[in-house]
Amino acid sequence: MSKDENLVLGVDPGTAITGYGLVWGEGDDLRLVDYGAITTPSDRSLPERLQDIYRQLTALIQERQPAAAAVEKLFFSRNVRTALSVGQARGVALLAMANAGITVHEYTPLEIKQAVVGYGRATKKQVQEMVKMLLGLDIVPQPDDAADAIAVAICHIHSARMRELIQSSKPKAQSSNAEGICAPYAHSGP
Amino acid sequence: MSKDENLVLGVDPGTAITGYGLVWGEGDDLRLVDYGAITTPSDRSLPERLQDIYRQLTALIQERQPAAAAVEKLFFSRNVRTALSVGQARGVALLAMANAGITVHEYTPLEIKQAVVGYGRATKKQVQEMVKMLLGLDIVPQPDDAADAIAVAICHIHSARMRELIQSSKPKAQSSNAEGICAPYAHSGP
Repeated sequence: MSKDENLVLGVDPGTAITGYGLVWGEGDDLRLVDYGAITTPSDRSLPERLQDIYRQLTALIQERQPAAAAVEKLFFSRNVRTALSVGQARGVALLAMANAGITVHEYTPLEIKQAVVGYGRATKKQVQEMVKMLLGLDIVPQPDDAADAIAVAICHIHSARMRELIQSSKPKAQSSNAEGICAPYAHSGP
Repeated sequence: MSKDENLVLGVDPGTAITGYGLVWGEGDDLRLVDYGAITTPSDRSLPERLQDIYRQLTALIQERQPAAAAVEKLFFSRNVRTALSVGQARGVALLAMANAGITVHEYTPLEIKQAVVGYGRATKKQVQEMVKMLLGLDIVPQPDDAADAIAVAICHIHSARMRELIQSSKPKAQSSNAEGICAPYAHSGP
């Protein structure tokens, strides 16, 4: 099956709960295709829980065929123990994306707030309300992890569109200024 | 191919360098089968680097068929950024082990020092010298990441032996005291 160039998978990784959201976007048209959370029981071993996350994300990518994935860039965490735990889940999520052959893009919390709300200091609640509004939903998607995953997917769609606009208006520019707004690992521009 | 019940894979994960060591052990007889480091170039994307670690560990397990793997249990790190980075590499290492169907055991730095040197406050240098001596080598295995990986493999062999001894001397005990010495995710005892 060929990948859907307009479909983006957003992921908010965690060992206990990994949120995901699949957003389809073209121009100003944004649609929520699927969202949810992969939860792993705490009585299973860590390798088994990581295996669950990897398998379920891989199955989701196989089923929906997004062309790109987006995750929040992490610099800090409540504490080192949390950072190790999030890091482990994040590692297998990035691996699932790479093994499925989709490009992975990273955005800082500031970039996500800027792209979704238009304001870098927006609260979590404001981001969630804006996610609801942009996708024309009746309620904020639950759990929070899924809403966060949807937000980073929207951020990627907006940023990719911004890059296209900048590149089409500056055909001779060597590198796009939009790289300053978002710093993905790979981008699909020409 | 069937797994070698006496062969243990020790891994010291890191995004830039992941050390590994394969130690074969039976009673007091310890032999170093293979060791080395998986290095990933910093100019590649993080998902690609994690893919490298996963693929090379998977290939190593396929080739050597260890029955068990051992990694250091992490509670702290120099800082949150390092913890996130180590966590990501650790996540894909644990996944490679789980996907290959081998049991994964975790040991604290204290348990490793106790098992290898017989002294929980041993220095890194003392651990390395003891690794060299126990395996009858002429030099300390390099790089340090490989020596650390070998040390955790030796710790698992010693601890598994200790559990067997305790279990055979206390046939009616419900749970082995050795669990206090080492806290693996899973153990192969009866």
